[in-house]
Amino acid sequence: MHNSALGGPEKSRRPKVVVVGGGFGGVRVAKALARAEVDVTLVDRANHHLFQPLLYQVATGTLPPGLIAPALRRVVRKERNTRTVLAEVHDIDLERKVVRAATPTEGILELPYDYLVVAGGATHAYFGHPQWSQFAPGMKTIDDARMLRSHILGAYELAELATDDAEREAHLTFVVVGAGPTGVEITGQLAELARHVLPEDYRSIDTRQARIILLDAGPSVLSPFAPKLQAYTRRRLEEMGVEVRLNTAATDMDHESITVKGETGQDRIVARTKIWAAGVQASPLAAMLAEATGTPTDRAGRLAVGPDCSLPGAEGVYAIGDMVTTPDRLPGVAQVAMQQGTYVGKLIADRVQGDTRTPSPFRYVDKGSMATIGARQAVADVRGVTITGYLAYLLWCSVHVMFLVGWGNRLGTLYDWVRSLRHARNRGHRLINLTGAKAIEMAPQAA
Amino acid sequence: MHNSALGGPEKSRRPKVVVVGGGFGGVRVAKALARAEVDVTLVDRANHHLFQPLLYQVATGTLPPGLIAPALRRVVRKERNTRTVLAEVHDIDLERKVVRAATPTEGILELPYDYLVVAGGATHAYFGHPQWSQFAPGMKTIDDARMLRSHILGAYELAELATDDAEREAHLTFVVVGAGPTGVEITGQLAELARHVLPEDYRSIDTRQARIILLDAGPSVLSPFAPKLQAYTRRRLEEMGVEVRLNTAATDMDHESITVKGETGQDRIVARTKIWAAGVQASPLAAMLAEATGTPTDRAGRLAVGPDCSLPGAEGVYAIGDMVTTPDRLPGVAQVAMQQGTYVGKLIADRVQGDTRTPSPFRYVDKGSMATIGARQAVADVRGVTITGYLAYLLWCSVHVMFLVGWGNRLGTLYDWVRSLRHARNRGHRLINLTGAKAIEMAPQAA
Repeated sequence: MHNSALGGPEKSRRPKVVVVGGGFGGVRVAKALARAEVDVTLVDRANHHLFQPLLYQVATGTLPPGLIAPALRRVVRKERNTRTVLAEVHDIDLERKVVRAATPTEGILELPYDYLVVAGGATHAYFGHPQWSQFAPGMKTIDDARMLRSHILGAYELAELATDDAEREAHLTFVVVGAGPTGVEITGQLAELARHVLPEDYRSIDTRQARIILLDAGPSVLSPFAPKLQAYTRRRLEEMGVEVRLNTAATDMDHESITVKGETGQDRIVARTKIWAAGVQASPLAAMLAEATGTPTDRAGRLAVGPDCSLPGAEGVYAIGDMVTTPDRLPGVAQVAMQQGTYVGKLIADRVQGDTRTPSPFRYVDKGSMATIGARQAVADVRGVTITGYLAYLLWCSVHVMFLVGWGNRLGTLYDWVRSLRHARNRGHRLINLTGAKAIEMAPQAA
Repeated sequence: MHNSALGGPEKSRRPKVVVVGGGFGGVRVAKALARAEVDVTLVDRANHHLFQPLLYQVATGTLPPGLIAPALRRVVRKERNTRTVLAEVHDIDLERKVVRAATPTEGILELPYDYLVVAGGATHAYFGHPQWSQFAPGMKTIDDARMLRSHILGAYELAELATDDAEREAHLTFVVVGAGPTGVEITGQLAELARHVLPEDYRSIDTRQARIILLDAGPSVLSPFAPKLQAYTRRRLEEMGVEVRLNTAATDMDHESITVKGETGQDRIVARTKIWAAGVQASPLAAMLAEATGTPTDRAGRLAVGPDCSLPGAEGVYAIGDMVTTPDRLPGVAQVAMQQGTYVGKLIADRVQGDTRTPSPFRYVDKGSMATIGARQAVADVRGVTITGYLAYLLWCSVHVMFLVGWGNRLGTLYDWVRSLRHARNRGHRLINLTGAKAIEMAPQAA
């Protein structure tokens, strides 16, 4: 309040905090600073706060995008000291303490900061095969999920129209690369669509004949989960008709097919739909900060921040979430980003109040992991306690609904889940984007 | 059943009915033929059945597209004699009785018919200024509505970022051209957004300062309604802060502004957002059929079909909905298309059963018109009885929910309406499409 180093109105003398990224981490920073005597600027290139763990349900038509992507400025409307800026951060001048962001119309905006929190998240990693992104799209944004939805539902449309058997089979073969939670969850949804949702709607094809394959280069599905849950999940998927191929890696890919190499040698699978759920790569902002400060990064490009999430060699700069790695190598999940966001927000609030002590290091409280396997089945691993089946599914529902932003979105999501239950046999949001013919054929290229 | 003129399996000997267009008219034809001994092919270039009267609620963030656009093949899944084909009709060979449609991958599909119903709908008309479509998008498809949503909500984002006053005002000025039901409804929603939904979310701008202008070249708003309702609607809009300018036509337009000419002379209004709700033009299929048969069309390109909706000079061909005009000059509304669809479907069912009598002409039963004016206000004109205010709004809600397809969509829509009520002050679906910076600036050009 009494920092008189700057001129201008009273308000501008308060320390400025710039937060880059309005995801799980960034929003928590703003919330933790709500009562601090600071001015927060939250910058994101999208206008929404995305709940990524449910993105696969947008891609498969269960949820509309809006329910899991409320307007970012709505999410922080009660944090009166936070303003939201729609702009894309291009570079950060650590010397002058200025973030430079491109806005749609006003050109480059300079955002000076006293404290900076970079929470840029991660994107897909194609392990040295960037060209695969056009054949096997992944899911990180609402646009990705919409594109995938058009592609998946479009495949059935094309199969219905196909005039020869090979063509029809190519459209009805779906390969998911990567058997982590995202890969397992979308595979389960694909099986549900094929076996229970779509059969009644088609006349020329039997959608139950669709072939759904889940690959992983490692020896297990859901590798971070307890072995018991891995076995359960694999069994459930196989009961749903999914081919689970472990120790099998993608070696090549094109519009028509994917080539894989596993224990039984090389195999070319003709499949028009390939979905990438295999790896992530830190936001390019990590590399930029690494270069500017000489901070090391790991194989996925994540910045090695200090135990208090601070960026070594840059005063007042913190980085959190999927773009960083901490000494205790935490998983790239929402919980870590959220807890780091709250931690750094409080740390900055303390600093502003004059607390100059070395902060106690960030400590992650693992509240457990869970994943759905198709309709009404899930696995959960809560501090060593494993739960499976319908009970785990109910737990999964409760936890995910709880973490959505706003009661409107929570109730709306519950409603769409009830609609998607087996007796209703529908998905409420089956739109194929753009109109008709061009859209579907374009989808794989444009992804 | 016993038509043995054709070889092949038993099934293929049944008369073939091709229906072009899966809108209000086309779907009713398929439903009316559900029990007839025919094979129906329903062709549409989109995969969904669109409930156009609620499109403006997608454009303003109240409803997600999925609720008003269920999968077309889902809508007719119980009509087991109907198959749905995703393809765009390019031409119709009336001699050979074949519809030619382009599919995404299989090239041109030839669909032979014994009976053909063309229900291609209408598109926007810019009255000799086709270039205006890029500056003032209209609403006919889900993509139109999504684009408009990005544009409207993007305008506030750009205003928040604007560094000079003129720029800010340009972003905060919204002009709606055409004061029919669609124009009035979207104007009401724009006023709601500006006055009640958005104010809390912005820091640099006061969204209540947004200028919202509704233009019409004619002397009244809601011209087909009773004069009492016209006066009421105008007063309500003005109370909501809308500038209503009648007898005022658009004469020029560019990215930055719209020039209008009215009673007080010419006026150039600087406004980044212009929305077109002024006129419609029949589907190009109307012109194609007119040329092939020498059938006249009216000023809006609508085919002058016979009293039984048949196309003169083409055996077994019918045209219905917004692309036709009948001797009694019916309005281009959903009710007409639906009733014509049912009428023609039954007529074909009779023909197939051997009834060769001249059918009694199509008779439209006008069930009334209604329009909303912002939140919780509407006007309704039901066979001469006029209703206004909250009661009319409840009536409007009931009727519109009833006509949605499926209980899932009805309940979901009711839920989103409750969410949008004034005390909740939000819109659940505020996504700006594509990510960030590029999207908004692109929107006006790409529209």
